[in-house]
Amino acid sequence: MNSADLGRRVGVPSTALFTDQYELTMVQAALKAGTADRYSVFEAFTRRLPEGRRYGVVGGTGRVLDAVENFHFDDEMLAFLRDRDVVDAPTLQWLADYRFSGDIWGYPEGEVYFPGSPILRVEGSFAECVLLETVILSILNHDSAIAAAASRMSAAAGGRGLIEMGARRTHELSAVASARAAYVGGFDTTSDLAAGFRYGIPTVGTSAHAFTLLHDTERDAFQAQVDSLGRNTTLLVDTYDVTEAVRTAVEIAGTELGAVRIDSGDLLLVAHRVRQQLDELGATGTRIVVTSDLDEYAIASLAAAPVDAYGVGTQLVTGSGHPTCSMVYKLVARAGSADPAEELRPVAKKSLGAKSSVGGRKWAARRLDEHGVAEAEVVGTGPVPAELADRQLQVELVRGGEVVAREPLEAARTRHLAARGGLPMSASQLSRGEPVIPTERV
Amino acid sequence: MNSADLGRRVGVPSTALFTDQYELTMVQAALKAGTADRYSVFEAFTRRLPEGRRYGVVGGTGRVLDAVENFHFDDEMLAFLRDRDVVDAPTLQWLADYRFSGDIWGYPEGEVYFPGSPILRVEGSFAECVLLETVILSILNHDSAIAAAASRMSAAAGGRGLIEMGARRTHELSAVASARAAYVGGFDTTSDLAAGFRYGIPTVGTSAHAFTLLHDTERDAFQAQVDSLGRNTTLLVDTYDVTEAVRTAVEIAGTELGAVRIDSGDLLLVAHRVRQQLDELGATGTRIVVTSDLDEYAIASLAAAPVDAYGVGTQLVTGSGHPTCSMVYKLVARAGSADPAEELRPVAKKSLGAKSSVGGRKWAARRLDEHGVAEAEVVGTGPVPAELADRQLQVELVRGGEVVAREPLEAARTRHLAARGGLPMSASQLSRGEPVIPTERV
Repeated sequence: MNSADLGRRVGVPSTALFTDQYELTMVQAALKAGTADRYSVFEAFTRRLPEGRRYGVVGGTGRVLDAVENFHFDDEMLAFLRDRDVVDAPTLQWLADYRFSGDIWGYPEGEVYFPGSPILRVEGSFAECVLLETVILSILNHDSAIAAAASRMSAAAGGRGLIEMGARRTHELSAVASARAAYVGGFDTTSDLAAGFRYGIPTVGTSAHAFTLLHDTERDAFQAQVDSLGRNTTLLVDTYDVTEAVRTAVEIAGTELGAVRIDSGDLLLVAHRVRQQLDELGATGTRIVVTSDLDEYAIASLAAAPVDAYGVGTQLVTGSGHPTCSMVYKLVARAGSADPAEELRPVAKKSLGAKSSVGGRKWAARRLDEHGVAEAEVVGTGPVPAELADRQLQVELVRGGEVVAREPLEAARTRHLAARGGLPMSASQLSRGEPVIPTERV
Repeated sequence: MNSADLGRRVGVPSTALFTDQYELTMVQAALKAGTADRYSVFEAFTRRLPEGRRYGVVGGTGRVLDAVENFHFDDEMLAFLRDRDVVDAPTLQWLADYRFSGDIWGYPEGEVYFPGSPILRVEGSFAECVLLETVILSILNHDSAIAAAASRMSAAAGGRGLIEMGARRTHELSAVASARAAYVGGFDTTSDLAAGFRYGIPTVGTSAHAFTLLHDTERDAFQAQVDSLGRNTTLLVDTYDVTEAVRTAVEIAGTELGAVRIDSGDLLLVAHRVRQQLDELGATGTRIVVTSDLDEYAIASLAAAPVDAYGVGTQLVTGSGHPTCSMVYKLVARAGSADPAEELRPVAKKSLGAKSSVGGRKWAARRLDEHGVAEAEVVGTGPVPAELADRQLQVELVRGGEVVAREPLEAARTRHLAARGGLPMSASQLSRGEPVIPTERV
């Protein structure tokens, strides 16, 4: 598949400096010690879900692939590292030639995950793998946090429309990635034009209070909007008096009026009143869009209200209380040489606190019960049991430095809905609880 | 001042699509209605501080200036908008010619703010000002959230070193902006190379557990690091047994060892033990760096521990519980024509809930008590009282579309420390409370 089919690939700059300095100095020291090329296996995983969450959602895998592909040091970057004395001359030369040439396997984007799930596995020389730590974690930690919030909101919305409109509440590029992750998690559209441009996500818009206030009357504003954007537009009806605004809106646009947006007040109450008024005016097809600091709980509480679509901002792009995941990227096994065929030694920190990890290269599979519902996330380091062989979760993403698993964003979105649908019903409970299935280590 | 003095200005792409779609459709409707050029005043402000916070910190002003300067639609963007039918042909033509030509005044970066402080004021035609809404809010909401968290942490650290190391916990470009905002808020260094490259922030690094695990023994790893990076390096001592690691570290690097890093365990206890051990070994100048999910409370709780520097990640880049501010960008006054000399009409939404705002173009000043300590944030729409004339907070940032207030990042950092120092002492209490000074409207 040609990558041009997969959204517009614009201006992805080099990702090589989205890196913590210690990765470069570790490479320098390992080069000098002759250990830099020891064949190594790193894994990205999380020890726990955010408190009370029942499942995680893998977001950002596609962006990780872009980042690995664009990870190279240009002359200006190398000059910076030299001028700042970050690393020595042999290391600069090594960096100048850097291209990741190893292998990456991982959970495909949109898949769900649990504590200990080996979400991404990166193999190659120590030096080439350790360099990718920060940028991989940045992407997975951010995008998975947003995808998880989006998934909860889309479960709560129960099929009603979900518009991502949080761009103004987060960093401008975090916003683009958030719109992307929200789409994976089940949102339908975004207000963020850059997300439409970069990833092909459908974009939508309504109107702001400023537009009404610009005009001498609300009627003038509605008339201007309908004249230019047509009767199918969405009019914002809460700048002054909602009842009067709805009446004016239908007078101007007729019963073909596309939608009205309510951005304040008791949304449950107001939505009912507006629906009744619209119906009485004959605008039975006019939709109601609500916005105003919605989260998954507010969305769920409006289930009985006559709402057609939810616009969600702040709480989405901040992960609904959990703006990051706690994924880490750990060396789990290594050889004594560059030979990948050499037996790998499992390695793990023996930490003081709760931070110890399990050594060894891991596989993962999701075991189903007799009804086909997930009952355990099984993670192991030995041979894969025959009965789990076709339930393995990791797929090949990069082979010998070449990305082999690009896919349209739609595929990740579809996968997520299927994966979530395969979990026990309690997965979509919004209340706090334990992970909906346990992780078993074998 | 030449902008080349102000950090490397690299690859700032066009910011024009960091925009919600409704801004473009509002421009289209206003162009058609003949209202697009009405002279307008927009203000960015917040109705409240995050719960319990005592002051806010303006972060991102310098990035806003970059964003305004780089806000232009290139051919590919225009083709996207045309192909998607986002706006009509006359609007596309207007966008193709777009350059902001208005004026911007605002609180300078690093200044503190309170509910209602008019942090940024943007004036010009309605159309040219409304387009900037999303990107301005993205930057201010994100960067100010991080700067505020950084400020609390730097107050708690009481002069000890603060290293920003949160890149892996947030979007890769959010990370760069976070390192920048952290520096404004009082951090000293960052681990993020892109932040050093883009903004000239000092970068530092230590070592990861993976480096120790790569080697056959901890001794081998320390030897490799010291051989390559010198005795002044920072050795990570908690991969296996801390006491043994510290002994090995001093054996290898001698008493000139730069620092040791502790990343797990009871940091208070371990830091005391390690300090005692280092001193007994004669390494009295070896510093102790602690990391591991620190926030301002953990930093404060380590005040009595022999810690020389704190490395802070997750809690910094997520705003320590408040990853965004609630700044909004509102039309507060407008004329009936394009003439800025025409009398401005104050405008404001009459909302259903708590979202109403105060119309009119505002000035702001900080009134001091007899000891020179801030006692009120005074915000008004009429003439500035004579006694407050020289205490005004807004400065000119953009004049007729030209940026007139570029400054080195250091200036914002210095300004912040001075502004925080001018607040009542209770500003630096970490406990929840009311804003440390009231906002008075006159």
